[in-house]
Amino acid sequence: MKIVDIVEKTVSLKSDIRNAYVDFSQMTCSVVAVKTDVYVNGKQVIGYGFNSNGRYGQGALMRDRFIPRIKAADQNQWIGEDGFIDPAKVNKSMRVNEKPGGHGERSVAVGTIDMALWDALAKANQVPLWQLLADRFNAGKADHKVFVYAAGGYYYPGKGLDALKEEMKGYLNLGYDIVKMKIGGESINIDKERIEAVLEVVGDGQRLAVDANGRFDLQTAIAYAEMMKPYDLFWYEEAGDPLDYQLQAVLSEIYPGAMATGENLFSVQDARNLIRYAGMRSDRDWLQFDPPLSYGLVEYFDTLKMLQELGWSPRRCIPHGGHQFALNIAAGLGLGGNESYPGVFQPFGGFADNTQVEGGKITLPDAPGVGFELKSTLWNEILKDL
Amino acid sequence: MKIVDIVEKTVSLKSDIRNAYVDFSQMTCSVVAVKTDVYVNGKQVIGYGFNSNGRYGQGALMRDRFIPRIKAADQNQWIGEDGFIDPAKVNKSMRVNEKPGGHGERSVAVGTIDMALWDALAKANQVPLWQLLADRFNAGKADHKVFVYAAGGYYYPGKGLDALKEEMKGYLNLGYDIVKMKIGGESINIDKERIEAVLEVVGDGQRLAVDANGRFDLQTAIAYAEMMKPYDLFWYEEAGDPLDYQLQAVLSEIYPGAMATGENLFSVQDARNLIRYAGMRSDRDWLQFDPPLSYGLVEYFDTLKMLQELGWSPRRCIPHGGHQFALNIAAGLGLGGNESYPGVFQPFGGFADNTQVEGGKITLPDAPGVGFELKSTLWNEILKDL
Repeated sequence: MKIVDIVEKTVSLKSDIRNAYVDFSQMTCSVVAVKTDVYVNGKQVIGYGFNSNGRYGQGALMRDRFIPRIKAADQNQWIGEDGFIDPAKVNKSMRVNEKPGGHGERSVAVGTIDMALWDALAKANQVPLWQLLADRFNAGKADHKVFVYAAGGYYYPGKGLDALKEEMKGYLNLGYDIVKMKIGGESINIDKERIEAVLEVVGDGQRLAVDANGRFDLQTAIAYAEMMKPYDLFWYEEAGDPLDYQLQAVLSEIYPGAMATGENLFSVQDARNLIRYAGMRSDRDWLQFDPPLSYGLVEYFDTLKMLQELGWSPRRCIPHGGHQFALNIAAGLGLGGNESYPGVFQPFGGFADNTQVEGGKITLPDAPGVGFELKSTLWNEILKDL
Repeated sequence: MKIVDIVEKTVSLKSDIRNAYVDFSQMTCSVVAVKTDVYVNGKQVIGYGFNSNGRYGQGALMRDRFIPRIKAADQNQWIGEDGFIDPAKVNKSMRVNEKPGGHGERSVAVGTIDMALWDALAKANQVPLWQLLADRFNAGKADHKVFVYAAGGYYYPGKGLDALKEEMKGYLNLGYDIVKMKIGGESINIDKERIEAVLEVVGDGQRLAVDANGRFDLQTAIAYAEMMKPYDLFWYEEAGDPLDYQLQAVLSEIYPGAMATGENLFSVQDARNLIRYAGMRSDRDWLQFDPPLSYGLVEYFDTLKMLQELGWSPRRCIPHGGHQFALNIAAGLGLGGNESYPGVFQPFGGFADNTQVEGGKITLPDAPGVGFELKSTLWNEILKDL
């Protein structure tokens, strides 16, 4: 197996939403195609990848550093036991001459290419990625249904409580049990009203998660914790700056409910610091590291190993991003579930067209690879012409 | 004052050196010119910046995100009390729509532009940058001489102990009191020989610092600590991964000598975690955060404020990078000193041509701005044609 070409392209996210930090109308996304010399049933094996939302596309870094390193390398060194290219070995080649520390941006460039390499590997082996991961790394045990929650509840210009409630009703109608909404983009009193409006729809605090996107200082984070404590929510996500482990540790002493964080930590070293210093509780809290933003699945394996050594089950991991790649990882490696954006970040958000959410769980498709070809908008609008 | 144009260019570092992590022959550097509509004595005020070594040039991120945000902004919002553009306000504009966490790459792009903004501001005010900083932020107290140490001792192909000793003699002849060498690129026994060879030249452990560039795992870091303890070195730099605060904390319990780290932490949040978790000792250890790699001097002010709140003097800061920008900051804000690369990373390494190192200290020049125009190779080969 040889990589014969790598194509990358930057596209815009179609979105007028915002969270507490980012106006998504300016956000870009990198898509990548890794073309190989392997043919299956007469069809060239091409792996695809894209970076998940919240961070900008990284085409420039790919063109400057990572694709040239791939093209300059002797590909024979990358062949694994199955005769195909081992993504772990390519990952190492991409990261030559990179200093430690400073994990951002480049972690997205490497992670996006990593996604395409896993897609290609599973296609070459003619199995779904979740199956390949389960067989090779999880003693064959795959979850055929994976917990997903509907992430939405963004602030739109002019969006009122009724529109928020309608949005959440829509998610329940799609089969989701648990929904997530943003907080921190308005005053605490307005957010309290928004939370109570959604609770009217979902009926139970355990069916609602809230996400502050790292906006709060310690005092505000505590004020929200006190306000939300009586609702017994499913989780309270990213209250403070993602690197402010002390804030998180203080919160975990005063807020008994579950908390979630990790989408803005992009390396095993950063993830380890979260576990070491942030007071996260392995019996209830959730870890949201997002592989394509974080040097890919290759680094995620190291993160899962670190978690195990520090006493955490992979079931506590529910990756950020709402993409099919993380869904495959969740199913194949026995994670706790996956994020889902049924209504936003199109055409990247969401899963294969023919999959249904039932009772808050989604069934994995059987197509080889990640399954991008089964998501028609993504496939037709973006990937098929790469 | 208006910014009328921003030009950026990527250049290669001329170097065949390597440290424990990076082959510098592939390393790039971004240079930036911020052109203003202010004229002093008939000459247009143009500020210059470049990113210091160890991280790649960031022209692509500048072109994709940061320069467009500057160009799209209403510049009136940036005017400070002196009627010129306040770099702190531009910094804020550049960082709109950037999520928290993931501080790398973009921190270099912003920091490089920040350097140029400070150069322009000091030129518009017709004072050296160190003077402007002292007047505005340090009650007028500038250090007219700043401690510098000669950073070298890299691994070159075929470089033996004699060449290493000759290199170090050369630094002493240039007026440096303290020299630094790399460790961790060879076995511990070879590094011991290299250290002892340099000690023959400098005569005293307090005149030699060593730098592992974050290469060691805990066991190796401890082995080197034990090996080096008897030499009573000036400092033991970046033993382990820059984010492995626990390794650093363990070392600080077993190694009584001074340690130094921080060049690979690119935000105030990361710097704060170092102080919170790494067991750094404010009576002897050194902090090496490098402003142009870390969102610029604007962020460095926040870092100095955080340090003060946590009991650290700015005298414990000796920035990485060996550039004139950090030298100005060291002189103007009363830091402990500055790195110097008298022999490497040309034409970016080193200071103004007419400055001399005497007794390990360097005198600051009186030219307006950072003083790039006084460094003829940098000025003639790179900056003057931007």
